[in-house]
Amino acid sequence: MHNSIYIGVIGAGICPDRTYDLARDVGFEIGKNGWTLVCGGLEGVMEGAAKGCTEAGGMTIGILPGLDRDTANPYIRVPIPTGLGDGRNLLVVRASDILVAIAGGHGTLSEIALALKTEKPVIGLETWNDINGVLYASDFRDAIQKIEEILDKKPKSKG
Amino acid sequence: MHNSIYIGVIGAGICPDRTYDLARDVGFEIGKNGWTLVCGGLEGVMEGAAKGCTEAGGMTIGILPGLDRDTANPYIRVPIPTGLGDGRNLLVVRASDILVAIAGGHGTLSEIALALKTEKPVIGLETWNDINGVLYASDFRDAIQKIEEILDKKPKSKG
Amino acid sequence: MHNSIYIGVIGAGICPDRTYDLARDVGFEIGKNGWTLVCGGLEGVMEGAAKGCTEAGGMTIGILPGLDRDTANPYIRVPIPTGLGDGRNLLVVRASDILVAIAGGHGTLSEIALALKTEKPVIGLETWNDINGVLYASDFRDAIQKIEEILDKKPKSKG
Amino acid sequence: MHNSIYIGVIGAGICPDRTYDLARDVGFEIGKNGWTLVCGGLEGVMEGAAKGCTEAGGMTIGILPGLDRDTANPYIRVPIPTGLGDGRNLLVVRASDILVAIAGGHGTLSEIALALKTEKPVIGLETWNDINGVLYASDFRDAIQKIEEILDKKPKSKG
Repeated sequence: MHNSIYIGVIGAGICPDRTYDLARDVGFEIGKNGWTLVCGGLEGVMEGAAKGCTEAGGMTIGILPGLDRDTANPYIRVPIPTGLGDGRNLLVVRASDILVAIAGGHGTLSEIALALKTEKPVIGLETWNDINGVLYASDFRDAIQKIEEILDKKPKSKG
Repeated sequence: MHNSIYIGVIGAGICPDRTYDLARDVGFEIGKNGWTLVCGGLEGVMEGAAKGCTEAGGMTIGILPGLDRDTANPYIRVPIPTGLGDGRNLLVVRASDILVAIAGGHGTLSEIALALKTEKPVIGLETWNDINGVLYASDFRDAIQKIEEILDKKPKSKG
Repeated sequence: MHNSIYIGVIGAGICPDRTYDLARDVGFEIGKNGWTLVCGGLEGVMEGAAKGCTEAGGMTIGILPGLDRDTANPYIRVPIPTGLGDGRNLLVVRASDILVAIAGGHGTLSEIALALKTEKPVIGLETWNDINGVLYASDFRDAIQKIEEILDKKPKSKG
Repeated sequence: MHNSIYIGVIGAGICPDRTYDLARDVGFEIGKNGWTLVCGGLEGVMEGAAKGCTEAGGMTIGILPGLDRDTANPYIRVPIPTGLGDGRNLLVVRASDILVAIAGGHGTLSEIALALKTEKPVIGLETWNDINGVLYASDFRDAIQKIEEILDKKPKSKG
């Protein structure tokens, strides 16, 4: 029943409009492909991605740092309050098959690093440079293509 | 978008058919009422509740102890692997507004206690006796009625 | 270097003097035996046990719910702030070989249940009644004797 | 009683001798200054630092990823098994006042990022380059001097 691919989108809670729109483009493609979006549930990049995914009819999960479901942005279909603060970053990583990092600060960097530590693919868009292991993409289309390439190589039973 | 009530159903991963059916009855009512089911995602009581909720067209979330999404029972719409082992019990509690404990062993008891510790209502069905704070129900209809009574007393904005 | 036995003492952060003194008696015996005390680091039973253990020259660890080391009681030699709230209860259990529950409320009950779930021995002193699996002791001497009996049965390499 | 400064030393579990020795030099200074060493408790940089700190008579805490205390290196005075896997990285950060990153891979990078996210000072020694916020040191003496400068600026009551 839940045989979807889960794509985590990670990025800052505050971002310029340009970055928000980039996240929305990525989210839209995630929804269009029938993948599930996982994110931290708050504003900025997380909201942009969730908005795009929702617009494409996709499912959105927000794993929240606090205890209050109402802190989720309005495009989160399933909010999961954790009360773990930055500890929820690890849960975003663990719930995702592949991650897309969009811009971001130290929180995003921690998620990139935790994902790579557990050998999950991380695709980077205008984010921290020169992190070995990150697959850097030139734009949202390139990012989606990289996801598809990874999925093509995976055994079909996965996800 | 996510303005649903979240009802956690807690109970053992192995249980007699009778208990499974009781969980299914509770789950069905949860789905019928438009509430979201939260559970630990595995078999036994968790599966019975998720099956019932799904049969009523409801949303089901499974917060899993391990790292593998495929350990979720087939009626979980949104599986969240955590890798926290018994640590996921706290997350089941934190993601729920109200909990229903059905039978269960020490894991269930830990969830009952964690919920009461954070002042979340716990309704008990054929579960650990004489835990002060638990609202004991005589059957699944009584359990659902107790949920409705709690919700009637809550401010409308909650959940 | 760390080949000590770790005894967790669990109980409420507010308690009557009588219970505090009982915890202190238990803690003193823990220190006298060269065991290490693990607790939640706050006041009440946790402080009583840490005070007793310190008076006997023992080592005391406090695994704190918040982020501030200064919330530890003055008898904690090693405070570990976690920021996990009630999530730290599981860490108290995981850091302990054997637990002693003294009186206590729902938080203590969650620790009793989590310990039993992971098959760690729990000795009960004036605490939640009729929890199957708990080894109920009549007084602090009986509690310590029960610990010794458990240790005698364990392979020597453990702990 | 616990009014020590806690210095976290983070780095990989496997490292060249040269890096081990560098960690040992840092650890020795930590112990000599009466600070408490916090680390992940395993081998490599964590062991080097713990060995040095022990040789200087200092206290060493190891916050372990697994459930088994015996996975701690022999220079850990207080091992804390967590069973959280990489989730323990956040606990290393939360237990520390200041962190020193020595070389390291993605796990270390996640700790650097989590520390900076929560505005804890991070001193870098032969580690990930160009992470904004990291105070890069040229050798172990420079690292210790940077710690002292940070402590001099702190209010005396802290730690």
